[in-house]
Amino acid sequence: MELITWVIPIAGIAAVAFALYLARDVLSRDKGPQAMQDVADTIREGADAFVKRQYTTIGMLALVGAVIIGVVIALVETRDVADVPDLAGVPIGIMTAVAFLVGAACSMASGIIGMYISVRSNVRTAAAAQRSLVEAVQVAMRGGAVSGFLVVALSLLGVWGIFMAYQAVIADITVREAPFLIVGFGFGASFVALFAQLGGGIYTKAADVGSDLVGKVEAGIPEDDPRNAGVVADLVGDNVGDCAGRGADLFESTAAENIGAMILGVAVFALATANNWPNPELWIFFPLVIRGFGLLATIVSMFFIRGSETENPMNILNRGYWVTTILSIGGLAFTTYVMMDTGGQLPTSGIPPWVWFFGAGVVGLATSVAFVYITQYYTAGTFRPVREIAEASKTGPATNIISGTAVGFETTAVTAITIGIALIASHWLGEQAFAGIEGARNGGIFGTAVATMGMLMTTAYILAMDTFGPITDNAGGVAEFSRAEAGAREITDRLDAVGNTTKALTKGYAIASASLAAFLLFSAYIDKVNLILGNQIANGTRAAGTLLESVNLADVNVFVAALIGAMLVYFFSSLAIRAVGTTAQSIIVEVRRQFREMPGIMDYTQRPDYARVVDITTRAALRQMVAPGLVAVATPIGVGLLLGHQAVAGMLMVGTIAGVLLATTLNNGGGAWDNAKKYIESGNLKDDEGNVIGKGTPAHAAAVVGDTVGDPFKDTAGPSLHVLVKLLATITLVLAPLFIR
Amino acid sequence: MELITWVIPIAGIAAVAFALYLARDVLSRDKGPQAMQDVADTIREGADAFVKRQYTTIGMLALVGAVIIGVVIALVETRDVADVPDLAGVPIGIMTAVAFLVGAACSMASGIIGMYISVRSNVRTAAAAQRSLVEAVQVAMRGGAVSGFLVVALSLLGVWGIFMAYQAVIADITVREAPFLIVGFGFGASFVALFAQLGGGIYTKAADVGSDLVGKVEAGIPEDDPRNAGVVADLVGDNVGDCAGRGADLFESTAAENIGAMILGVAVFALATANNWPNPELWIFFPLVIRGFGLLATIVSMFFIRGSETENPMNILNRGYWVTTILSIGGLAFTTYVMMDTGGQLPTSGIPPWVWFFGAGVVGLATSVAFVYITQYYTAGTFRPVREIAEASKTGPATNIISGTAVGFETTAVTAITIGIALIASHWLGEQAFAGIEGARNGGIFGTAVATMGMLMTTAYILAMDTFGPITDNAGGVAEFSRAEAGAREITDRLDAVGNTTKALTKGYAIASASLAAFLLFSAYIDKVNLILGNQIANGTRAAGTLLESVNLADVNVFVAALIGAMLVYFFSSLAIRAVGTTAQSIIVEVRRQFREMPGIMDYTQRPDYARVVDITTRAALRQMVAPGLVAVATPIGVGLLLGHQAVAGMLMVGTIAGVLLATTLNNGGGAWDNAKKYIESGNLKDDEGNVIGKGTPAHAAAVVGDTVGDPFKDTAGPSLHVLVKLLATITLVLAPLFIR
Repeated sequence: MELITWVIPIAGIAAVAFALYLARDVLSRDKGPQAMQDVADTIREGADAFVKRQYTTIGMLALVGAVIIGVVIALVETRDVADVPDLAGVPIGIMTAVAFLVGAACSMASGIIGMYISVRSNVRTAAAAQRSLVEAVQVAMRGGAVSGFLVVALSLLGVWGIFMAYQAVIADITVREAPFLIVGFGFGASFVALFAQLGGGIYTKAADVGSDLVGKVEAGIPEDDPRNAGVVADLVGDNVGDCAGRGADLFESTAAENIGAMILGVAVFALATANNWPNPELWIFFPLVIRGFGLLATIVSMFFIRGSETENPMNILNRGYWVTTILSIGGLAFTTYVMMDTGGQLPTSGIPPWVWFFGAGVVGLATSVAFVYITQYYTAGTFRPVREIAEASKTGPATNIISGTAVGFETTAVTAITIGIALIASHWLGEQAFAGIEGARNGGIFGTAVATMGMLMTTAYILAMDTFGPITDNAGGVAEFSRAEAGAREITDRLDAVGNTTKALTKGYAIASASLAAFLLFSAYIDKVNLILGNQIANGTRAAGTLLESVNLADVNVFVAALIGAMLVYFFSSLAIRAVGTTAQSIIVEVRRQFREMPGIMDYTQRPDYARVVDITTRAALRQMVAPGLVAVATPIGVGLLLGHQAVAGMLMVGTIAGVLLATTLNNGGGAWDNAKKYIESGNLKDDEGNVIGKGTPAHAAAVVGDTVGDPFKDTAGPSLHVLVKLLATITLVLAPLFIR
Repeated sequence: MELITWVIPIAGIAAVAFALYLARDVLSRDKGPQAMQDVADTIREGADAFVKRQYTTIGMLALVGAVIIGVVIALVETRDVADVPDLAGVPIGIMTAVAFLVGAACSMASGIIGMYISVRSNVRTAAAAQRSLVEAVQVAMRGGAVSGFLVVALSLLGVWGIFMAYQAVIADITVREAPFLIVGFGFGASFVALFAQLGGGIYTKAADVGSDLVGKVEAGIPEDDPRNAGVVADLVGDNVGDCAGRGADLFESTAAENIGAMILGVAVFALATANNWPNPELWIFFPLVIRGFGLLATIVSMFFIRGSETENPMNILNRGYWVTTILSIGGLAFTTYVMMDTGGQLPTSGIPPWVWFFGAGVVGLATSVAFVYITQYYTAGTFRPVREIAEASKTGPATNIISGTAVGFETTAVTAITIGIALIASHWLGEQAFAGIEGARNGGIFGTAVATMGMLMTTAYILAMDTFGPITDNAGGVAEFSRAEAGAREITDRLDAVGNTTKALTKGYAIASASLAAFLLFSAYIDKVNLILGNQIANGTRAAGTLLESVNLADVNVFVAALIGAMLVYFFSSLAIRAVGTTAQSIIVEVRRQFREMPGIMDYTQRPDYARVVDITTRAALRQMVAPGLVAVATPIGVGLLLGHQAVAGMLMVGTIAGVLLATTLNNGGGAWDNAKKYIESGNLKDDEGNVIGKGTPAHAAAVVGDTVGDPFKDTAGPSLHVLVKLLATITLVLAPLFIR
C-alpha cells in the first residue's frame, strides 16, 4: 500500500472519532427546563418509533433484495460475460450480495446514529438559545456534523474496507478488477437511500400538510399549537426527512460516485501500466484519497464556527464553509501532485497532467459554490423570484400557483447551463491532461470524474448544515411548545430561517453533484458493458467489432428507452406526491377523531395522544413508499430485459436529464413558495398606498396555499428524484450482464 | 407524372372547393334576432382586430426571418456542403427563403380564413340552437370544417406546388433533390405556428383569467356577465387560441412531416432505382398521395354528421370520425398497394412490402384512436382521475392543486408507453418490408414515417372537431349575452361540454402525431447532414468515414446539448406562463378603471368599452409572445453553432422527449382541473352523508382555483410546446449546413 493511501483509513477513522467527540460534547450539554425536556422526549420517542419501524422494513427489503441480486448475478454472470471470469457464477453472486448488504448496512447505520443525535440536539439547542446565539449555533451545527461526518466516513471506510477485503481474501483479484466487484455496495446504498428518502419524505410532508389542514384550517388553532395531536408528528417529520433522508441521499452519492470514479480509474491504470508510470494503482485510489482530505478539511473547519452574538448566523456557517472549500483546494492540489505522477511524461501542452486534473477538481468546487448562490437567488426573499410570487398572491391562490410554477420552471435554465459549462470545462481539461500521450483515450471522462470528486470534498460540511435545519426547526418547536421566554424564541426563529436556507442549499448541492456524477456513472456503465463484451469476443461467443462504442439516440430502441426513462421521472413523482396526500388523509381522520372524542383537548385539560398520530403516520408512510420504490427498481430492469444494454444506457442518460430538471423545478418552486409566504409574514408586501399586507390577509392565505402545494414538491418528490437518478445508475451498473444481448 | 399522383392536386382543390361550399352554406344561414347579432358583431370586430394586428406582426417577423434565412443559407451552403451542389450559394438561399415565405403565407391564409368563418358561425349556431340540436351541431361542425379542410389542403397544395415549381423551373433539380430544397416551407409554417399559437394562447388565457379575476372574484358578478368589460375579449380569445392557434399547429405538422417523409422517401427511391422497381419516384410522392386520400375520406364523412335530437351530440361527431377512419384504412390499403410496387421482388418473409407498410399505416391510425380514449379517461368526469381531484377539493385549494399535479404527471405513463409501442411496432413492420432486399437500410425508419402519415390522414376531421369547440363556446356566450330563451341555452350548453372534450382530444392527437413524427424528422435531419458530409468527402474537404452514423449520448457535447434541449422546454413554458400573468394584469387594470370611471356599468345603464379591452389585450399578448418566440428560435441555433451537428441532433431528440412529456402533463392536468370543477358544478360531489357539495361551496371555490391554474397550462404553454418541438426539427433541418463541423 502506498503511503498516501493511508490517508483513507486515517481520515475515515479520524472523522468517526471526531463525530463521537462531537456527539459526546452535544449530549453533555444542558437540556433546559423540564417543560422543554418533556416536549423533546415526545419528539424523540416518535422519531425512535419511526426509525425502528422504517429501518426494520428497509432492512428486510434489503435482505430480500440482496438474495435476489445474489441469485440473479450468480445465474447471469457466466464465464463468458463475467467481468472477472475466474469468479464467474456463484462467487460473483455472493460477493455482489455481500457488498450490497454492507452498503445497505453502512447507510442504515449512519442514518440511525445521525437521527439519534439530531433528536437529542434540538432540546439542547433550545436550552442554549436561552443564553447565547453563538452557543445555539454551535450546538446545532455540532449535532448536524455528527451526521455529516458519519455519512461520509462510513461510505469511505465501507468502500475501502470491502475493496481491501476482497483483494486480500481472494488472491485472484487484482487491483484493476476489484472496483467492478464492489458495485453492489453502491447499489445497496441506493436501495436504502430510495426507501429512506421516500419514507421520510412522505412522512414529513404528510404530517406537515395533514396537521396544518386539520389544525389551522379546520379547527382554527395556530401552527405548532400543542392542542393539535399532529404537531409532534410534524416535528418528528423534520428529522426523518431532512436528517435521515438527505443523509442517505448523500451517503449514496459519495459511495456510488466513488465506485464509478474508481472504475474509470481502471482505464487510466491500464494507460499508466502501458507507459510505465510509477504507482499506476494510485489512479484507482485517487477518488478515495481525495475524499479523505475532504474529511480532514471539514474537521478543521469545525473550529471556525464562531462569531459574535449580533452577527447574522448564516455568516457563521458560511465561514466554516469557506474554510472547508479553501482547505479542500489545498488538499486537491497536494493529492493530484502526489498521485498523478506520469514519470516525467508530458502531454502535448507540456504542462503535467496533474495540473490539468487539479483544474478539473477546482471546476467541481466552483460548481458547488455556484449552486449555493443560485439556490439563494431563487429561494431567498431578497431577490426577484420570491417577490414576484408574493406580488402574485395579491390576486389570490391561483395567480400565486401560476407564478410559482413559472419560477420553478425558470430555475432549470441557469441550473442546466451551469452543469453544462462544468461538464464541458472539466472534460476539456481532462482531454488536455492526456493529449498526445500514446494510448490515452479517457482523459476527458476522467476529468469529469475528478470534478465530481472535487465537488464532493465538502459533502460532510454541507450535510452538517443540512441537519442544522431540522435541529433548529425542532428547537423552535420545543421553545414554542414549552412556552420559553421571548429571547430564546427570537434566537430559535433566526436560526430556523437560516436552517431553511441551508436545507435548500443542500438540495441544490445534491442535484448538482448528481448531474456532474451522472456523466461519470454512464461512462462506468459503458466500461463495464465493454469489459463483458470484450470477454465474449475473446471467448468467440460474440462477433468482433460489436463493442458499445456509442449510445445511439437515433436507434429506435434507444429512443423509446429514453422516452420511458424521462416518463419514469414524472410517474415516480406522481406516485410520491399522491402518497403524501393519502398519508395526510389518515392523519386528518385521526386528529379529527381526537378533537371529537377528547373534548378536553381544546381547553388544555386533556393531552392529545401524540404517539398514536406518529404511529399511524409511520405505518401509512411506510406502506405508501412501496409502490414508487418498486416502480423505480422495476422499470430499468424491465427496459433492460426488453430492449437491451444500449437502450438501458439511453434510458439512464435521458432519465438523468429529466430527473435533474424536474427535481430542480420541484425543489426551487417549493422553496420559493415557502419563502414568499415568509416574505409576506415578515411584512415586506405592500399595497399601492404602501400599507403592509401581512399575516391574516387574503394575500397571506393565498401564499399559504402555495406553501402547502410546494411541501410535497420540495421535500418528497424532489429529493426522491435525486435518489432515483442515482439508483438508475447503480442498478444498471450491477445488473449490466442481464441486459447484454 | 404518374396517374395516382394526380390525387394530390385533385384532392387539394376538391377540399378547398368543399370548404368554400361549406362556408357559403354556413354564411347563408339565419343569424337570429338582433340581440344575438349585436353581441356576435362585437366578438367579430374584436377577433378581426386581433387577427389584423397579429398577422401583421407575424407577417413582418416572417419577412425578416426569410431575409435572414436566405442570406445565411446563401453564405453557408457553399459548393462543398450544399445538398444540391449545382445550386450552391445564392440560388439555394433564394429558394429556401421563397419556400419559407410560401409556407408562412399558406399558414397565415388558412388561419385568417378559418377565423373569418369561425367568428361568423357562432351566432348562426346560437340561432340554430333555437330550433334544433342537430342543426346546431351541423352549423358548428361545418364552420369548423372550413378551417380543417383549408389547413390540410393548403399545406398539401403548398408543398406539392412548390415542389413541382422548383422541379419545372430549374431543370437541374431531379425528383430526389427537390425535397431538400423545400424544407424552408416547413420552417416557414413552424415559424408562423409558433407565434400564432403563442400569441393566441397568451391572449385567450390572459383574457379568461383576467376577466374572471376582476369580474367574478373582485366585483362579484357572474362569469360571462355583460357588465364585465373583459368578457368580449374572453369570447374573442376562444377563437384566436383554439381555431387560429391549433390550426397553425396542425398546418405545421402536416407540412413538416410531409417534407420529412419525402426526404426519407428519397432513400427508398435510391433503393428502388438500384433494384429496377417500377416508378421509383412514387416512394417520394407517397406521403402527399396518402394525405390526398385522407382529405377525400373527410369530405365523405361530412355527410354522415347527422342524428336524432335526443342523441348525445358526441355520438354524432364520433360517427363522422369513424367514417373518416374506416375510409382512410381503405385509402391506405389502395395507396400502398398501387404505389409500393417492387416489381415482384419480395423480402425474406415472402409477403410484399406494401402489406407491411399498410400495417405500419394502420398502427398510426390505431395510435390516433388510442389517444382519443386516453385523453377521455384522464379528462372526463366519469373516470377516476377527475373524481380524485374533485374529492381533494374538499380540503381546499392546496390539496386540489397537489392532486391535479399528480394526475398530470401520471398521464405521461400511458402516453409514453403508447408512443413507444407505436414506434417499435411500425419500425419493426418497416424492417420486415425490406428484410433481405439487397442494399436496403431504411425500412424501419420509413415504417415510422408511414405510421405518421396514417395517423395524419384524419387531421382535417380532427381539426374540424377542434374548431367546433370555440364556435359552440361562443354560441353559448352569445345566447347568454343576448338572454336567449332557455331551450336554446340548454342546447348550447350541451354542445359546449362536447366542445371541451373535442378540444382536449385535438391536443392529445397533436402531441401524439408530434412524437410519432419526431422520429421521422430526426431521421430526415440525419439524412440531410449525411448528404452534406458525403458531398464534402467526395470533394476531398473532409476525411472519409466521418458520416453521422450515430447520435452518441455518451459524447459530452451531445449530452450537454440534450440537457439544454430538455431545459429549453421548461424555460419556454415558464416564459409562456408568465406572459399570461403579465397580460392578465393589464386587463385587470383596465376593467377596474372602467368600473371606477363608468359607474353606470353596474346597473346596466352604461355599456362597457369592450373594444378597448380587446385592443389592450391584443397589444399586450403580441408584445409578450416575442420573448418566448425568440428563445425558441435562438437556442437551437446557438447550440448548433457552439456544439456542432451531432450535438444539435441530441438536443432535438431529447428536447422532443421532454417537450412531449411536459406538454402531456400540462394539457391533461389542465383538462382534468377544468372538468373537476365542472364535475362539482354538475352536483356529482357528495359529502359522507350523501349531501351534494355544489356551486358556491368552499370545495367549489377550491376547484375554481385549480381550473384557473390549469388555464395557462393547457391552453398556452402546452399547445405552444407542440409547436416548439416541431420548430426544433424544422429549424435544424433548414440550418443543418450552419452546424456542420
